[in-house]
Amino acid sequence: MLSYKAPLNDIKFLMEDVLDFYPHFEKFPEFEEATPDLIDAIFQECAKFCENELLPLNQSADKEGCHFENGEVKTPKGFKAAYEQYVAGGWQSLSHGLEYGGQGLPPSLGLIKSEMMGTANWSWAMYPGLSHGAMNTIDLHGSTKQKEKYLTKLTEGTWTGTMCLTEPQCGTDLGQVKTKAIPNGDGTYSITGTKIFISAGEHDLTDNIIHIVLARLPDAPEGTRGISLFIVPKMHSDEQGNITDRNGVVCGSIEDKMGIKGSATAVLNFDNAIGELIGPENKGLECMFTFMNTARIGTALQGICATELSYQNALEYAKERLSMRALSGTKEPDKVADPIICHPDVRKMLLTQKAFAEGGRAMIYYAAKLADTIEHSKDEKAKKRADYRLGFITPILKAFLTEVGVESANLGVQVFGGHGYIKEWGMEQIVRDVRISTLYEGTTGIQALDLLGRKILLSRGKSLKSFSMEVLGFCKDKSMISSNPHKRQMNKFIWPLSKAVANWQQCSVRLAMKAKKNRDYVGSASVDYLMYSGYVVMGYFWAQMAQASYEKLAGEVENRDFYRAKIKTAEFYFERIFPRIKSLSATMMADPKSLMQLDQELLSFL
Amino acid sequence: MLSYKAPLNDIKFLMEDVLDFYPHFEKFPEFEEATPDLIDAIFQECAKFCENELLPLNQSADKEGCHFENGEVKTPKGFKAAYEQYVAGGWQSLSHGLEYGGQGLPPSLGLIKSEMMGTANWSWAMYPGLSHGAMNTIDLHGSTKQKEKYLTKLTEGTWTGTMCLTEPQCGTDLGQVKTKAIPNGDGTYSITGTKIFISAGEHDLTDNIIHIVLARLPDAPEGTRGISLFIVPKMHSDEQGNITDRNGVVCGSIEDKMGIKGSATAVLNFDNAIGELIGPENKGLECMFTFMNTARIGTALQGICATELSYQNALEYAKERLSMRALSGTKEPDKVADPIICHPDVRKMLLTQKAFAEGGRAMIYYAAKLADTIEHSKDEKAKKRADYRLGFITPILKAFLTEVGVESANLGVQVFGGHGYIKEWGMEQIVRDVRISTLYEGTTGIQALDLLGRKILLSRGKSLKSFSMEVLGFCKDKSMISSNPHKRQMNKFIWPLSKAVANWQQCSVRLAMKAKKNRDYVGSASVDYLMYSGYVVMGYFWAQMAQASYEKLAGEVENRDFYRAKIKTAEFYFERIFPRIKSLSATMMADPKSLMQLDQELLSFL
Repeated sequence: MLSYKAPLNDIKFLMEDVLDFYPHFEKFPEFEEATPDLIDAIFQECAKFCENELLPLNQSADKEGCHFENGEVKTPKGFKAAYEQYVAGGWQSLSHGLEYGGQGLPPSLGLIKSEMMGTANWSWAMYPGLSHGAMNTIDLHGSTKQKEKYLTKLTEGTWTGTMCLTEPQCGTDLGQVKTKAIPNGDGTYSITGTKIFISAGEHDLTDNIIHIVLARLPDAPEGTRGISLFIVPKMHSDEQGNITDRNGVVCGSIEDKMGIKGSATAVLNFDNAIGELIGPENKGLECMFTFMNTARIGTALQGICATELSYQNALEYAKERLSMRALSGTKEPDKVADPIICHPDVRKMLLTQKAFAEGGRAMIYYAAKLADTIEHSKDEKAKKRADYRLGFITPILKAFLTEVGVESANLGVQVFGGHGYIKEWGMEQIVRDVRISTLYEGTTGIQALDLLGRKILLSRGKSLKSFSMEVLGFCKDKSMISSNPHKRQMNKFIWPLSKAVANWQQCSVRLAMKAKKNRDYVGSASVDYLMYSGYVVMGYFWAQMAQASYEKLAGEVENRDFYRAKIKTAEFYFERIFPRIKSLSATMMADPKSLMQLDQELLSFL
Repeated sequence: MLSYKAPLNDIKFLMEDVLDFYPHFEKFPEFEEATPDLIDAIFQECAKFCENELLPLNQSADKEGCHFENGEVKTPKGFKAAYEQYVAGGWQSLSHGLEYGGQGLPPSLGLIKSEMMGTANWSWAMYPGLSHGAMNTIDLHGSTKQKEKYLTKLTEGTWTGTMCLTEPQCGTDLGQVKTKAIPNGDGTYSITGTKIFISAGEHDLTDNIIHIVLARLPDAPEGTRGISLFIVPKMHSDEQGNITDRNGVVCGSIEDKMGIKGSATAVLNFDNAIGELIGPENKGLECMFTFMNTARIGTALQGICATELSYQNALEYAKERLSMRALSGTKEPDKVADPIICHPDVRKMLLTQKAFAEGGRAMIYYAAKLADTIEHSKDEKAKKRADYRLGFITPILKAFLTEVGVESANLGVQVFGGHGYIKEWGMEQIVRDVRISTLYEGTTGIQALDLLGRKILLSRGKSLKSFSMEVLGFCKDKSMISSNPHKRQMNKFIWPLSKAVANWQQCSVRLAMKAKKNRDYVGSASVDYLMYSGYVVMGYFWAQMAQASYEKLAGEVENRDFYRAKIKTAEFYFERIFPRIKSLSATMMADPKSLMQLDQELLSFL
């Protein structure tokens, strides 16, 4: 059975000691209630809900799955009750605007809440999670009337929402969308088409589901420039928000998947369903992309959630399971064998998980602060800066953290040996659940093209330059030439980090030059380039966490072991994980010829 | 739906052009029938059986699983019929001795047969596969009477066999085995205990199952030196081999697993089951280990099988699925988008699979030739040399090929995007099925300790020296200073390969020295060291395949494209995969301190 305890100490460390969340909140008058006391109290409540209500449904939901019959979906046992408790607790409204019933707390806190819930039970957390996307769309692009009609219900959690993008013939390539929207003459539209892979597209948690649908108006231009966005509710409602009759959208089936089995993935058939246009005609994709970054950070989270859950359980197992004697000499002579945590390779696997969980958490929280600024700052320049930075870091977070999440979950299975393969323990479920994360919301390959092609090359390296200036600034500030009292200890992090950043810049310039002559360099380098970037960014956060820990240890602090452990984990990261950039640095620069020269007919001779 | 065609061209290429199987067979008079014509005919029949009978049961068996009721296991629909066809076709007896009804063909051919069957349906193939282990044990250590009683039935396939090692408290650490064997005074023993994770431990394919069981005699020494080996049949039989009554072994349950669901993994309860001692008292583990290498090669095969199956299906999908335009310019203007195989990163994933499948196949066939020599050579020196070499290369093959098998299967899912996550396509099943391969028959960590601790350090590097002399000999022989007509083209492989081998040797020496002072170096370096070794060994075989292809192309040969494709795949391997050794080379040398310094209580602060 899986166990989970919310990492409240780590959350506090990041918010207070590393990322200065409270000075950050103080910049926004509307966040004046977001004090350490309130937030501690909220997170403690949240932890209880996750540990006591969501976690126990994690493995049972995987076993049971969702049930589909006659267009209706029944979620696994306990999901509905947990959702009702969630709504009653006001969790859905936590970081949404006061205007439509939200509690107005910072978006970053909503993300931290999502992390805990997603770790305890990712499948369950997808139902409320998808709503945030729909809410953001309506909030940013909806008319006042639309906001009044939909946003209040969604903020309460009385209704949930979805994003309907994918169709059978296209996922990434949304220019191929075929779903049609025909004006009815009364301001509404008749939507007809098939959408697939719609998470939370049908379920029994709420009476209504608000679909945000990509579709084409008649005579719309071909491709991506002819797509508009529509609100299509499952049920119509009257002025008072009471549900009236059924709209023309029906769930045709749900997918039988590798994992996240408690989360219903629906095929939705729209047959002259009544919809409302949201945002300008033919600008549907632009509207969608305005909050794509936040959605993708929400998916990046899954990598961390899987890593944390797998780590916590692998660690306990490794302390208990007895096998062989330590090569360096018997550790527990009174037992039949030593616990496997004595073996260096088991420790390597555990520390890899630990380094990814904690390093990734820092990366996510950094992005969450940017999201606060983007959504709440009155300073247009600061807002733009944050948006630019978030745009740069998002593909790295999404792809890198989900890839290392898959790796970590697999390491968790490996620590358990053969038992890791048995369902009962839950470790293999984490592997199956997290496997989707490198696929949805843009595959790793798509994130990598976004990073190298759009964010780096199109900006002529500006976004990288600005980020690497930040990192190098930190390095200079903490290094031998500075007044940092911990500079001697920090050197082991600063030196490889600054070297790696310099190489990152150089490789980027070289790739830009090569790509001018041969566009295939972009695609051939992209994934290795992204993973390189990920290790460097994570290295930056590990260095910051080490610096913060040295600072705390220099003062009077109670939980000294906590800070010592951070520093030692940083050492592990830089010695055992960071050198992965060496290989990536070589392979990303390889000529695309080795990929492109083989005619596709010659790839197999069967 | 998964498709599969046996790679007969690649098998032929390896046997004839690269690894000189026929001159090798000629060394053994008993293999005189193993001519190219006969073998081609056998493999064509085998391919038909795999493609038409086994493959169609692959996904349905995953869906259905095995059924357990009252101690009995029902295998998935179609398994029994396929098994009967297999036995009727004489497939089980292919490479077993004539004396007990075998066909006496080389063991290497048995392995190639197992590869095809395992690719088409690994779960099914485990039932006859496990028998080979039992047969080898009886063949090597059984008395004439035991051989007569059991070997004929097992060779026919009328009965199957198992290996019963693992118990709830121990898998790797067999010294903890508790199952007891009490002498009955009549030469038989009463076996009592619980064995878990017994593949093919109970099923409905045959009327009898012969268990080979590790157990302790009364007053046996503690630990590994007090374990003996027993033959414990599920059903007793009379002198004529007719089944009589039930023995005291009952299947208590079967495991609910991540994958290989068609393969029953049994908990076996032995309650005063009657068994016969096989081999000397207290020498059970030694007896087991005599054929552990071959068993592990059989498991290494799973990495290749998964890679091949995933590659074949991903390749077809990549040619058909249309998404986006190639960055280097539209490839298919008359279609709505270009097929995804135009995108460099998709090609990178496919070529990675291809390089691992074909490179891994060469490694396995090399090992298979060694097995022929070990089992059939009359030249004791040659036999010993082969055994030594196989012992060195086995942990590399087992761990490296299964690790890259897991990677490849995941890449196959990634090529399919979101569809890869849906069961229907079968791609996610390959990931689930192959995931067991790095766990059973010794985890990757155990293989790595075997390699670095036993095979390298205990032999003072002799085994590595002898193998690397072979590789460096090849390098010298094909390089610029030789008379090789293809030396100019071969240089791009020879140079990095010989450099990597030199570094391999240096690192080994340095690790040996460090390990003398600190034993934890062995465990901390081991897995990275093993993976480094794997990439180098695979590089050696890719270089050999390239050389063989150049040689073929220099002559009059029909399928020139086949050889060109081999060379280009070798180029891909050396440019995009081989550089992974750079990072491994760094991390394996890191001080174990970064793994060991954190007290286990400080690994978490929840």
